Amino acid sequence: MGLLRVEIAMSLDGYVAGPDQSADEPLGKGGEALHEWAFALDAWRQAHGREGGDTNPSSAVVEESLARAGAHIMGRKMFGGGPGPWDADDPWNGWWGEEPPFHKPVFVLTHHPRQPLELTGTTFTFVSDGIESALAQARAAAGDKDVQVSGGAEACRQYLAAGLVDELQINLAPLLLGGGERLFEGLGPDLKLEQQRAVEAPGVTHLFYRVG
Amino acid sequence: MGLLRVEIAMSLDGYVAGPDQSADEPLGKGGEALHEWAFALDAWRQAHGREGGDTNPSSAVVEESLARAGAHIMGRKMFGGGPGPWDADDPWNGWWGEEPPFHKPVFVLTHHPRQPLELTGTTFTFVSDGIESALAQARAAAGDKDVQVSGGAEACRQYLAAGLVDELQINLAPLLLGGGERLFEGLGPDLKLEQQRAVEAPGVTHLFYRVG
Repeated sequence: MGLLRVEIAMSLDGYVAGPDQSADEPLGKGGEALHEWAFALDAWRQAHGREGGDTNPSSAVVEESLARAGAHIMGRKMFGGGPGPWDADDPWNGWWGEEPPFHKPVFVLTHHPRQPLELTGTTFTFVSDGIESALAQARAAAGDKDVQVSGGAEACRQYLAAGLVDELQINLAPLLLGGGERLFEGLGPDLKLEQQRAVEAPGVTHLFYRVG
Repeated sequence: MGLLRVEIAMSLDGYVAGPDQSADEPLGKGGEALHEWAFALDAWRQAHGREGGDTNPSSAVVEESLARAGAHIMGRKMFGGGPGPWDADDPWNGWWGEEPPFHKPVFVLTHHPRQPLELTGTTFTFVSDGIESALAQARAAAGDKDVQVSGGAEACRQYLAAGLVDELQINLAPLLLGGGERLFEGLGPDLKLEQQRAVEAPGVTHLFYRVG
């Protein structure tokens, strides 16, 4: 069985999304800058169907993360479409268009049941009976590979607080957001971390911790 | 003229001191763990008049920091003794005993005037006319070397907010404090950071940023 990994980009002041999140700015004001290091990266561009890009120490980090993940879990907020029941006539199908970049099974935590959504290369399964159910389904889908919780803050916190996470990877961006969603809100010293490694790369430091 | 550097230890959730700071626990509950990586280190032990210790990648970081600093600035809270006027009969002389580890001029920000305090190897000068005055005095004392703001959170924030800081070094400890004093409270995206380097070492990652 693979590990349960949380991987997320965070500002130096602890935010994984900026203030005033909206459909136009799903990561809030300034939040997209958390991922700027990735946009020009060869490994990221390849995973998103684009050509070219820079090779630097982040490349191996991204390639390893992509190779290890057999399934993703995300919160409803990261999948998007606003809170509440799904619109039966015109359902929200995610931010990513017809071919999302995951190319792996994705399990979406939601309070509102919905049939699976099959897009090119990625099927989204909506799980409304809790984080442990989503984890069991994701583990079954991932086989020997890891299950990766990719956001948002609340989904990460729920798995961390429940003691289910094996490894935490923070892509630490050299900026302050000054407001928004804090990754560790409500968590504290009960969460035990063991530093594993740090990888310095242009515009980001990748931090790896073993949890628990 | 040297740089103005802020150097401070921070938890992964952004705190430089834990909750419930007191005379017994000046760094608050759990706060001492922010510095655990240093206590066993050869370079730290030598600077604190102790023998032995481990050599690891933190050693060079600590040695460089010690060599570069020509003077220190600290807040009243870091110097200690509680808020308010100094006790004329039994003044607080710091946490560090007769021979403090600085062995350099130290400038203490305070609202309450006080004559300089000369201990073995270190003179504390109390500055009650603002952070720019303290910086000017520290620069004069430091000569070609750097001036280092060493804490607490409020002193660091004041210099950062005033746009006076050249370099920020965060010694990032692999733990959550869950409460206490946040380094970046009240600061935000106006503070521009450029990542310089990251040094991974046992129990800590040293992060260096150019500011402004």
